[in-house]
Amino acid sequence: MPSDTPPNTVTACVLIIGNEILSGRTQDVNLHFLAEGLNEIGVRVAEARIIPDDSDIIVAALNHARASFDYVLTTGGIGPTHDDITSACVARAFGVPFGRNKEAEAILLAYYKPEDVTPERLSMADMPDGAVLIENPVSRAPGFQLENVFVLPGVPRIMRDMFEGMKHRLSGGDPVLSISITSHLPEGKFAGPLGAVQERFPEVDMGSYPFFRDHKLGANLVLRCADARMLDRAADAVRQMIRDLGSEPVEDETAAGIGINDGQLR
Amino acid sequence: MPSDTPPNTVTACVLIIGNEILSGRTQDVNLHFLAEGLNEIGVRVAEARIIPDDSDIIVAALNHARASFDYVLTTGGIGPTHDDITSACVARAFGVPFGRNKEAEAILLAYYKPEDVTPERLSMADMPDGAVLIENPVSRAPGFQLENVFVLPGVPRIMRDMFEGMKHRLSGGDPVLSISITSHLPEGKFAGPLGAVQERFPEVDMGSYPFFRDHKLGANLVLRCADARMLDRAADAVRQMIRDLGSEPVEDETAAGIGINDGQLR
Repeated sequence: MPSDTPPNTVTACVLIIGNEILSGRTQDVNLHFLAEGLNEIGVRVAEARIIPDDSDIIVAALNHARASFDYVLTTGGIGPTHDDITSACVARAFGVPFGRNKEAEAILLAYYKPEDVTPERLSMADMPDGAVLIENPVSRAPGFQLENVFVLPGVPRIMRDMFEGMKHRLSGGDPVLSISITSHLPEGKFAGPLGAVQERFPEVDMGSYPFFRDHKLGANLVLRCADARMLDRAADAVRQMIRDLGSEPVEDETAAGIGINDGQLR
Repeated sequence: MPSDTPPNTVTACVLIIGNEILSGRTQDVNLHFLAEGLNEIGVRVAEARIIPDDSDIIVAALNHARASFDYVLTTGGIGPTHDDITSACVARAFGVPFGRNKEAEAILLAYYKPEDVTPERLSMADMPDGAVLIENPVSRAPGFQLENVFVLPGVPRIMRDMFEGMKHRLSGGDPVLSISITSHLPEGKFAGPLGAVQERFPEVDMGSYPFFRDHKLGANLVLRCADARMLDRAADAVRQMIRDLGSEPVEDETAAGIGINDGQLR
């Protein structure tokens, strides 16, 4: 696939912050949601990192990501407990002061009953100087944006609503279109011809994802490109390739669902 | 939590290689499996990266990871199609020749019927010089180990069996033990006292994972430590803290299942 980035490509890095993902306690589902949501608005997730609740590591990852990609989205570590250190790390990464954001504080004071206001809850209003709030319609405590970094919570239900409310702040490039074609030939049968088709269409990213379903070997061939006409031509070439090998292409059987790729074989 | 690594800690980095994860097409499930499996043998996943099928990026990530952690496990990109470039990237990262591994070739030739042998299938036997094979009991095409790097496939069903067969090659440190305690107090109520307990037990990693279940706010408090006695003492302190706040600790309600953390609130 083409490794050089077309000029109209907008990229993002997702940083998943949290020991619970790395310990195997929790299955991350946020990356999948963000990758799909960003793709729809023309932003391509170019890398994701899952890192522990460790200041030095978070700061280093933030500084790498904000210099290397157009946007950075973080999830996790913005609650009221001692292991919630993301906001302070963003301040450190940018080298700006960290302290009480009055607008965020007002939101929290309006939300909690006076007897439920604790210093730790209010600490969720501590943010880097210059933070622009991201509204939280579920549990109120806001996230924030600082330049190209967007700080979101880790709880998927809250993160999703907050992403939907802030995604208009991102300027996407051309959305990447995709066509999936299912082949009931095993990968080894079409790997050579598919490589030849890929060479004819270097602008189209062609991936092959094998499966074993109903006791049949096959693969989903996923073609991705921002140029609709180029994509259609490449898809026709892939369909013809499958016919030339004596089989029949099927429009993607899994298009409607998430591919977990479990139970697949080469 | 403690950011300095105790001397008997053995670390790993997991590199998930594949455009399909970053595009949102596929939900990764391999990290969760590997994190749990490695933890059981005393190896702590300290970082994970999800990277595209791009040679330069893969090589850079491999060289970072193999220098920074005790072990590196990769998933994805070792099939027969043009987008399977992981093995060649490992050779580039180590600066060793890349070519046909005779032992792997023999396995493939024994497995496929002569008429099903294609150059692309045999290309799955192309490996870096010095590769030690990892047996594949499902679809035969082996993975390999080179020094501290273990190269596994992306298809979960195959990856899992291969990991089970090779994990004895890893020397773990003290396994990290964990105790989970469920609190039916919201995080904001105990964040301060929990921080104080964390300060008393700096060797114990304490995480707080909020939830909203059956219309009730609460949080799972997860304590992790390699020292069983220290862990028990810290857990008693957390239980007492919950009682002091007028509630009752519950031994983890979610211990048996995977926490997806969906539908949780602070």
